[in-house]
Amino acid sequence: VEDRNIGKQTGEALQEAFPYIRYFRGKTVLIKAGGSALEGDELQEQITVNIALLKHLGVQPVIVHGGGKAVTGMLSRTGCESRFDRGLRVTDPETMEITEMVLSGSVNKELSARLCRHGAPAAGISGRDGHLFSAARRNTDQMDLDRVGTITSVQPHLLYTLTNAGYIPVISPVSADPEGTVYNINADDAAVAAAVALKADTLIFLTDVPGILKVPGDPGSLLPLIEARDARRLIDNGTIAGGMIPKTEAALSALEGGVGAVRILDGTLPRVLLRALFSPEKTGTTIRKEPDY
Amino acid sequence: VEDRNIGKQTGEALQEAFPYIRYFRGKTVLIKAGGSALEGDELQEQITVNIALLKHLGVQPVIVHGGGKAVTGMLSRTGCESRFDRGLRVTDPETMEITEMVLSGSVNKELSARLCRHGAPAAGISGRDGHLFSAARRNTDQMDLDRVGTITSVQPHLLYTLTNAGYIPVISPVSADPEGTVYNINADDAAVAAAVALKADTLIFLTDVPGILKVPGDPGSLLPLIEARDARRLIDNGTIAGGMIPKTEAALSALEGGVGAVRILDGTLPRVLLRALFSPEKTGTTIRKEPDY
Amino acid sequence: VEDRNIGKQTGEALQEAFPYIRYFRGKTVLIKAGGSALEGDELQEQITVNIALLKHLGVQPVIVHGGGKAVTGMLSRTGCESRFDRGLRVTDPETMEITEMVLSGSVNKELSARLCRHGAPAAGISGRDGHLFSAARRNTDQMDLDRVGTITSVQPHLLYTLTNAGYIPVISPVSADPEGTVYNINADDAAVAAAVALKADTLIFLTDVPGILKVPGDPGSLLPLIEARDARRLIDNGTIAGGMIPKTEAALSALEGGVGAVRILDGTLPRVLLRALFSPEKTGTTIRKEPDY
Amino acid sequence: VEDRNIGKQTGEALQEAFPYIRYFRGKTVLIKAGGSALEGDELQEQITVNIALLKHLGVQPVIVHGGGKAVTGMLSRTGCESRFDRGLRVTDPETMEITEMVLSGSVNKELSARLCRHGAPAAGISGRDGHLFSAARRNTDQMDLDRVGTITSVQPHLLYTLTNAGYIPVISPVSADPEGTVYNINADDAAVAAAVALKADTLIFLTDVPGILKVPGDPGSLLPLIEARDARRLIDNGTIAGGMIPKTEAALSALEGGVGAVRILDGTLPRVLLRALFSPEKTGTTIRKEPDY
Amino acid sequence: VEDRNIGKQTGEALQEAFPYIRYFRGKTVLIKAGGSALEGDELQEQITVNIALLKHLGVQPVIVHGGGKAVTGMLSRTGCESRFDRGLRVTDPETMEITEMVLSGSVNKELSARLCRHGAPAAGISGRDGHLFSAARRNTDQMDLDRVGTITSVQPHLLYTLTNAGYIPVISPVSADPEGTVYNINADDAAVAAAVALKADTLIFLTDVPGILKVPGDPGSLLPLIEARDARRLIDNGTIAGGMIPKTEAALSALEGGVGAVRILDGTLPRVLLRALFSPEKTGTTIRKEPDY
Amino acid sequence: VEDRNIGKQTGEALQEAFPYIRYFRGKTVLIKAGGSALEGDELQEQITVNIALLKHLGVQPVIVHGGGKAVTGMLSRTGCESRFDRGLRVTDPETMEITEMVLSGSVNKELSARLCRHGAPAAGISGRDGHLFSAARRNTDQMDLDRVGTITSVQPHLLYTLTNAGYIPVISPVSADPEGTVYNINADDAAVAAAVALKADTLIFLTDVPGILKVPGDPGSLLPLIEARDARRLIDNGTIAGGMIPKTEAALSALEGGVGAVRILDGTLPRVLLRALFSPEKTGTTIRKEPDY
Repeated sequence: VEDRNIGKQTGEALQEAFPYIRYFRGKTVLIKAGGSALEGDELQEQITVNIALLKHLGVQPVIVHGGGKAVTGMLSRTGCESRFDRGLRVTDPETMEITEMVLSGSVNKELSARLCRHGAPAAGISGRDGHLFSAARRNTDQMDLDRVGTITSVQPHLLYTLTNAGYIPVISPVSADPEGTVYNINADDAAVAAAVALKADTLIFLTDVPGILKVPGDPGSLLPLIEARDARRLIDNGTIAGGMIPKTEAALSALEGGVGAVRILDGTLPRVLLRALFSPEKTGTTIRKEPDY
Repeated sequence: VEDRNIGKQTGEALQEAFPYIRYFRGKTVLIKAGGSALEGDELQEQITVNIALLKHLGVQPVIVHGGGKAVTGMLSRTGCESRFDRGLRVTDPETMEITEMVLSGSVNKELSARLCRHGAPAAGISGRDGHLFSAARRNTDQMDLDRVGTITSVQPHLLYTLTNAGYIPVISPVSADPEGTVYNINADDAAVAAAVALKADTLIFLTDVPGILKVPGDPGSLLPLIEARDARRLIDNGTIAGGMIPKTEAALSALEGGVGAVRILDGTLPRVLLRALFSPEKTGTTIRKEPDY
Repeated sequence: VEDRNIGKQTGEALQEAFPYIRYFRGKTVLIKAGGSALEGDELQEQITVNIALLKHLGVQPVIVHGGGKAVTGMLSRTGCESRFDRGLRVTDPETMEITEMVLSGSVNKELSARLCRHGAPAAGISGRDGHLFSAARRNTDQMDLDRVGTITSVQPHLLYTLTNAGYIPVISPVSADPEGTVYNINADDAAVAAAVALKADTLIFLTDVPGILKVPGDPGSLLPLIEARDARRLIDNGTIAGGMIPKTEAALSALEGGVGAVRILDGTLPRVLLRALFSPEKTGTTIRKEPDY
Repeated sequence: VEDRNIGKQTGEALQEAFPYIRYFRGKTVLIKAGGSALEGDELQEQITVNIALLKHLGVQPVIVHGGGKAVTGMLSRTGCESRFDRGLRVTDPETMEITEMVLSGSVNKELSARLCRHGAPAAGISGRDGHLFSAARRNTDQMDLDRVGTITSVQPHLLYTLTNAGYIPVISPVSADPEGTVYNINADDAAVAAAVALKADTLIFLTDVPGILKVPGDPGSLLPLIEARDARRLIDNGTIAGGMIPKTEAALSALEGGVGAVRILDGTLPRVLLRALFSPEKTGTTIRKEPDY
Repeated sequence: VEDRNIGKQTGEALQEAFPYIRYFRGKTVLIKAGGSALEGDELQEQITVNIALLKHLGVQPVIVHGGGKAVTGMLSRTGCESRFDRGLRVTDPETMEITEMVLSGSVNKELSARLCRHGAPAAGISGRDGHLFSAARRNTDQMDLDRVGTITSVQPHLLYTLTNAGYIPVISPVSADPEGTVYNINADDAAVAAAVALKADTLIFLTDVPGILKVPGDPGSLLPLIEARDARRLIDNGTIAGGMIPKTEAALSALEGGVGAVRILDGTLPRVLLRALFSPEKTGTTIRKEPDY
Repeated sequence: VEDRNIGKQTGEALQEAFPYIRYFRGKTVLIKAGGSALEGDELQEQITVNIALLKHLGVQPVIVHGGGKAVTGMLSRTGCESRFDRGLRVTDPETMEITEMVLSGSVNKELSARLCRHGAPAAGISGRDGHLFSAARRNTDQMDLDRVGTITSVQPHLLYTLTNAGYIPVISPVSADPEGTVYNINADDAAVAAAVALKADTLIFLTDVPGILKVPGDPGSLLPLIEARDARRLIDNGTIAGGMIPKTEAALSALEGGVGAVRILDGTLPRVLLRALFSPEKTGTTIRKEPDY
């Protein structure tokens, strides 16, 4: 009897998910897996299982990852002091070396290997492979961030090579300029650059917050849907503040570049990718262009 | 809150369905949609929605249909008397003409069109198209069934043409011999012939009974799994009786022809295809080869 | 000696046919096989043998068929009264059901199977398969024809799938609207829609008249060639009259849609397709665009 | 009226040719166009028109040509004396140079260009192009024929390159050994080598005799069909004599190499290729393997 | 020790050649091998070995050849008097016949066979094969050159067929008009026509002079680089004179047709093709378009 | 004048290299770039430039790298003590983590990026990507090396995906078992496994010694060629000793797995890859199978 209920629930759930499955079939969904969403074995396991399922449901996922805390940990182990200037980590060459090792050699391989184990072959690369990202030093008047870079162009050929052959690309954002100087690239920015180059249908920021809140700290005040034209106003009137400002700006530049929608999701919620993509549940915040009339 | 529950349920159900979705990805599943499973608009709607979803989950469905009651109805409207000889309908040329019109022209097109409407492009053909089935008169000593035929060979090229191009083939079993004489083919037999030719992973008989029962009329006595070597014994000792005998024999010849498993399901249960393929629910009866040790 | 003459004649005929064979190689020729051209076993046999030969000579034939008399016959057998309103059959749902069964289930399969027997693999489909035709109710102020429809769009993908794989598509004109309501479509109109979608080189109406006659009933007054710009005038001055008016209008809209030429042939003449396409014989009436100077 | 008769004849001829057209569709037919069949503008014109038509009827023709009289003519113009030893021309280096120029530079290009003009794109090559033929000096105890060679291996890749791209290969038999020494190759032998390498369905020797005659000089004594096992006996008992002996031996080695049938035709008969391939006319002599019972 | 020096030199040379190898990878280089560059076994051997190496280094060479002295020689052997009118050979039909035999049957096959022997499969064709060149009589008011023609159009399909399959096309310039009249085509003009049709990167004229000299007879006055806009002026002021005028005009029309650069090289210099393409050596004269600023 | 000499030398060198270039065209050459060959910017630059040139000369290089000293350096920076047991590093989980970061995140990306900069697109992956290597703990009776593993199977699909798309795969040997435990794999062993899976023509060990020496420390005693059957004897009699024993054993198992030849080269010699592959210079030691007589 219990058996039959399980089956019934599966059947109903699949049938309800059908229109969403139809919609996302063949679509590229770029997932930026951020710091805290990658913490802990259990969370990583769940997120990679979910991404593997996306792949089997016909979605084409592409991953860009960060890895802040793992970097900080390794820096302290090697005795490199993490210096910050107005909230941004100053990256000297030695820090850069450690950062690349952690991101491209540890976090990246762990994600790729987990996806493989769950039946979704993946290949971990970085912005330095196959001319994927070209970077340049980020110029700011007031600060010298040294090896903090910005992406100046994207060659998505390696990504297409991998996805056409059935692999999920897992991208470490570390990149270099044409002379070979290596730069640390903000993972959100790398995700936007890749999403735009691939004309992704959806860009997902997996974070550790519920989304954009009207009242800081009150999950009940979640803004489920923001149109692009309203986003700037929400920044100006202070509704969007702090760390959400650069994330919202990243979202807006993705939309401008042709990405269909940007979603900010709480990566610590169980199965949040499945729920957000394949059910009518209004989880997290969606930022999208206003419709054309 | 309710919203979130829906999403949670979808997420869980999808995650539970994941191993099954992985298994069936790219596999051919031949579905024989029988008489009563096709009765009523609602039932047809549900079954075709489910098949369309199978397609979107990466399964390759192929449909063979019968249509007994619709044929009987049209025969009575045209004044053709349905003659039976020991349980088998005697098919004179006029009866054959009506039978073909109903099966290939009405039931077939209705199924194909419903699948199309649910986003799964289908193409309705019959055994007479593209040399699909070659038939011959079924010889029996004691009876003259006239235009009742048997399939002597299958050319699956048209089926591959359609599936490779993304279409679900919907097959009316009516076939002809090399001289063009048209024969009525038992839909179960046509399904077996197509499943064997396509080396289908699974052959599903959608019926209006729960499966094979140990005690006639007692659903609690359902036999969920029968190995091929035990099936003959169950016929001999009378456990499998009546209309289940030819169906079991069809199943056995499918297994012998290389089909992976045969499942007898109750097509009137809601979402039975999804439940049977994508959940651990033990619905219906599965007949399979004994494992090789 | 006789032998040698046969060979000589074949050789000469082939050589004379050569420029025509060259011209039609790889060209799409849409053949609308109308009511009386389908009557009688012998005529059907001859026409399908000829179409099979076209295929072997490198032409790409596509068939649209009607089936008027067979429909009328079955309607009377089922006791459905054929109601006409100003010359057009009023199609109630029950009439529609019988019409579809006869066209898609009987006439269609018979043509497809005959072509297969003559070595030209064919596949019989209807407007309801693979989203081929989308239909809508035909609106006329003065009449309520109920289930008489008109084609609003064509998706030729299924036709290309079949022709690329070497099959001759045989199309029953029955179609449906997006909600699934089935409509009877005039076969000439379906032929024009398919010919335009496929950018056919030639559209042939196989009829039971010699072509367009200047003097009704006098075959000697046949008009062998009409340019599009003159056709309307011939309707206005009454030269083209009766059933030839809608046929001429169908021809004109085919030409406007990009079809190269429309030919009205007497399908009861032996081998008329071969004679008309591969010899200088001026059989039937050709309607074509005026040349561009 | 006359018009109509022409059309009727074309129609009938095409219909009678139908089974032959079906048979030869896609088949490779290797045509060796011999000396006298190439003499005179009119004869060449007719033969190339016929080969072009074969191509348009779906046959895949490949041509190997000789050119004896043209070579003799040019040799005498250049003052090279044609020396013969027991019926075989002795080919010294200078003779070889002239022979190659005439065969590969004149006869070859003329045939290729004529086929092109009749709408059948052709490409003229020789055994020295693309490693097509490897040759060796023909060793005979009694004679020193100098630059007379024999084919030791065939690389058909260039032929497939041309036929797959729609070209008729026209092959001059002149070939070389691995060191580059050029040899004159008997065109019949080159035709057999190419036919065997291509697994041709039919090898045709276009000659200037009616075929193999029982009574020399009496066309009424033509042997229309000879089975391979009988051919040797006919040579031994003298029925096959003179120049027909090497031709028959060439035919036998083609049959042994897998060619379906060899036909010896009188190339001066109008349209003999069309008549022989597409009608039941029993022209020339066919040599084939005995059937397998 | 010596061994090691050889290796060291090879290593250095390859490394120095690297940027040139990168540049020419996949590029089409049309090489016109002129009269004296084809004289002598040793020179031909060297040039064909070098072209074979180009092919192996990833360049796509296409050859057009002349053959003036070989033609003159054969004409005198056959007693055809070489008549000239103001420096151009008057080509009567008989002269044309000999010319074609020598160019298409002798020079062409020799080049093709040599390339094959050096591991670079080649196929020798002429302008009459595969509709490659269409020619017309060259009209000049003052002279009647009879069978001297000019190219009116190019169909490069056969060239692409051969290069895509890995063959080097070797082209004899002899061509015909649509009626089949054969014409002698200046090989430089044929090379330009082919280079333009193929959008070649570089067109090389292999001659027997060092390039364009400022002071006739003084190799030290070689002009290594001429821009297109300056070429006409150099003709007008007499710097470019004599036989270099038509060659320069050929070069200019190649540049206008989209060819990247034209190089006039001394084909008698050892390995001049390798040196000119893969080293910074300034050998010969390069004519190129002025840069776009 | 100097110019011309440069060109001459290039021309000669290319011509001498021609037979080697022909041989290696399209062949897979697996290059194991070992510890000291990767030390210093200049050496890395030179080796990657040479590999990029190999690629442009038509070779298909695949790189496996080690990185011993970089690992040791990072271990000491993080305070991880490098423990050795009988010459093998004992790899505890923490050491493994650092090792992976350095190999997959630093050395790997540096090589990939340098190749990209020299015009040879590369993609850096590790044994954990795309199921490339499956590993298991290396069992030895006497030692517990913890995370030292051995390769149990290779799935080369990702390598083919990359090479078919034009990328040079750069492989870090770090791998995992099916449960995800990460192991340190000896780079020589990983190179052998990949070379065997790809049926490489040549496996090159780039080391910092001249090859196998008869007299330790005497370069003049270099053994340029060793046949497989003699190698074991040279180990037994002590000629091959120390670190050369496992390298020779790796070479032998590569030869047994179907690799054509194994070469041990001194990676610190300028352009050693070019010299060893493209000239007759006898640099380093080649180990190959004895010929089949």
